Amino acid sequence: MSPAPKGMRDFGPDAMILRNQVFSRLETIFESFGFDPLETPVVEMWETIKGKYGDEAENQMVYHFKDSWGGKEMALRYDLTVPLARFMAENPTVPMPFCRYHIGRVYRHDQPQKGRYREFWQCDVDVVGSDKPEADALIIKVVLAVMKEFGFKQFTVRLNDRRLLNGIFTRGLGVKNFKEVLVAVDKINKIGLEGVEKEIRKIEPDKVTSIVNVLKIRGGNQKILDEIVKTFDNEEVRSGKACLEKVLALVGDDRVKIDLSMVRGLDYYTGPIFETVVEKPKIGSLTGGGRYDSLIGLYGGRDLPATGTTIGVERLIDAGLELGVFRRDTQTPTQVGIIAMDGGDAYAWKVAETLRLAGLKVKIDLMQRKWNKQSEYYKKLGVPVMVFVGEREIREQTSTVVFGQKRDSVKFEKLPEKIRNLLKV
Amino acid sequence: MSPAPKGMRDFGPDAMILRNQVFSRLETIFESFGFDPLETPVVEMWETIKGKYGDEAENQMVYHFKDSWGGKEMALRYDLTVPLARFMAENPTVPMPFCRYHIGRVYRHDQPQKGRYREFWQCDVDVVGSDKPEADALIIKVVLAVMKEFGFKQFTVRLNDRRLLNGIFTRGLGVKNFKEVLVAVDKINKIGLEGVEKEIRKIEPDKVTSIVNVLKIRGGNQKILDEIVKTFDNEEVRSGKACLEKVLALVGDDRVKIDLSMVRGLDYYTGPIFETVVEKPKIGSLTGGGRYDSLIGLYGGRDLPATGTTIGVERLIDAGLELGVFRRDTQTPTQVGIIAMDGGDAYAWKVAETLRLAGLKVKIDLMQRKWNKQSEYYKKLGVPVMVFVGEREIREQTSTVVFGQKRDSVKFEKLPEKIRNLLKV
Repeated sequence: MSPAPKGMRDFGPDAMILRNQVFSRLETIFESFGFDPLETPVVEMWETIKGKYGDEAENQMVYHFKDSWGGKEMALRYDLTVPLARFMAENPTVPMPFCRYHIGRVYRHDQPQKGRYREFWQCDVDVVGSDKPEADALIIKVVLAVMKEFGFKQFTVRLNDRRLLNGIFTRGLGVKNFKEVLVAVDKINKIGLEGVEKEIRKIEPDKVTSIVNVLKIRGGNQKILDEIVKTFDNEEVRSGKACLEKVLALVGDDRVKIDLSMVRGLDYYTGPIFETVVEKPKIGSLTGGGRYDSLIGLYGGRDLPATGTTIGVERLIDAGLELGVFRRDTQTPTQVGIIAMDGGDAYAWKVAETLRLAGLKVKIDLMQRKWNKQSEYYKKLGVPVMVFVGEREIREQTSTVVFGQKRDSVKFEKLPEKIRNLLKV
Repeated sequence: MSPAPKGMRDFGPDAMILRNQVFSRLETIFESFGFDPLETPVVEMWETIKGKYGDEAENQMVYHFKDSWGGKEMALRYDLTVPLARFMAENPTVPMPFCRYHIGRVYRHDQPQKGRYREFWQCDVDVVGSDKPEADALIIKVVLAVMKEFGFKQFTVRLNDRRLLNGIFTRGLGVKNFKEVLVAVDKINKIGLEGVEKEIRKIEPDKVTSIVNVLKIRGGNQKILDEIVKTFDNEEVRSGKACLEKVLALVGDDRVKIDLSMVRGLDYYTGPIFETVVEKPKIGSLTGGGRYDSLIGLYGGRDLPATGTTIGVERLIDAGLELGVFRRDTQTPTQVGIIAMDGGDAYAWKVAETLRLAGLKVKIDLMQRKWNKQSEYYKKLGVPVMVFVGEREIREQTSTVVFGQKRDSVKFEKLPEKIRNLLKV
């Protein structure tokens, strides 16, 4: 028997309690904004995965294998976007827009390190079927609700638009290697504006000053948009500007800030792009996404605009633990541990049954141990309430309830109410 | 782009809503009985899987592959018991008993057919670390609670014990091919007692009448146990009897019935075994399990008795749908659909925000559609409440709430309360 595969984790009860809480709070938010749950297989046919992530990722990162029978080529899913595209292609009658969330495992053969795993959970929220700014605005509102729910205070949602970038760089400045320039600008957080300037000098030596001047534009959202349209008045800039103005008006939150140097690396974005950066403490981006109008329809042979975001749940959990937003000190969801003293067995089971029927979570001795061993076990697991039953309690039809420093003798029929009060549930 | 792999399913919102409800009700039951959640990777090293399920299953049913990099041999998990054994081996300090539940996907390269899938969810509940009948009794109580929760009324929990069987057949009757006899008896539901008799005639021709006579023993639980111990008075029979008597006393439910012809196929059981058979309608067994004291410790190099059950969640869902216990007519968890008429956009978003903050699940138009298209969309999805806002509503700071045949004009500040009352939430 081997350990679990490298980069893949077991989640014991302490980890599961936390993860279930985080996932459930996320699901509640997504559903409050009108998003519906979707799940897909962990395994996809290789043909579905192939050609979607670039050669490097596909050769080095995708778990790709032949089945042992027909030799059919399969792969473990690498993200949740390609499965969504496949689902849309297989389900052409889904009412539009299709608003779905998906929290699920994906696989990447990355080098395992702190915060990076080979099996990890992604969390995606997308609107398929709408090309309107309302959809982008709703995604940003979901992001803001998530940040609020998990207690992050100092953060910025950076906003930009690919049409704006294209209108400025390609049409406005005559940049020929637009994609390469974006790849360079995308490194700004790692190498700084000077580093980006150096890289662009290699790609577009004539335009380097003009490009850097655009990246330096700062100010309020409306001021930035007005300044751009004054300098670069073309159709793409105008449509990007109109879209962002509508998004900003619908979202109505001044933590959303236009940032022309935020370009997001991926090829497939076509409209607004956005990411959330936590400023204090510096943990980098927690969410990232944007509009990708050509990707999903491509596979299904029909026109399917889409916009959405990924929420970095693994990072959210790791950061939350570090920041003390979450704690991982609960070893069990159990609320009550019954301690049966000599001869108290049958009565102890009766007490347990009564508490369970009252909706409480109850452990009882399963090893015929002495009372002090039972008590040690509950203490080790952090069970908050202990209920002692022995000969005296049976005779008097009571129980002795211990909660922290409190110790009370409670009548059998008052027990559920007493414990609910102690636990405030 | 290919469809999903054969035998693997997408779960759209309608399926997910039902599955999430079923899983969540199961989790609540498991936690009320003191079981804690565990999750493990979908991928295991081949070495962990190898030699655990017999040659036939391992060659034909286990998804087994080499990774594309080091050629490491891996497999998709085939059940949730081997991952539990690996977890126990890797976590030697877990407090005992370890009571865990696990609902998760497993993979079997079976021939897909109605109710049989290649990726499906298993649901296991086990106690590791106790060799006492209290643990077996708790597992059976969980099974009874599950049957009650999902509205099954006519069912039997069949109970037997491997020590009892061994004591009767091997020690009592001198049967030499005990395992083969069990395999034959295990087919009783498919081929009947006569078919079993034929098979045993091939295996143990001298003992066939005595064996069949044992399988025919009927009556109340205590009567069966007393009759056996009268005829076969040896240590194994006595310890099996004592154990079942204790289990029956703790469980205290007359739907639990000793059945000497229920033997369960798997090799590894060592004590009480149990399964739940639904009699009306005849859908076969919904749960199955038993005590397996040698399996888990074997891998970890220490003594770890265990007992547990599988609950057939896929069958539970399929059967529940057929029986009308569950319905799959909800397309979305959304409770309220906002319909923005001409010029009502900003106010509509304000109304949506207010309802979300009040804990309601709200969809809003994302496609700039006419009001009648918005209404059709909500009807198609089965959203129960619609809220119309237009010029008049903005002027009067009201909304028009439509629920079934009811139609009311409601003041802005009364809206959340009004909708909560309509939905009774």
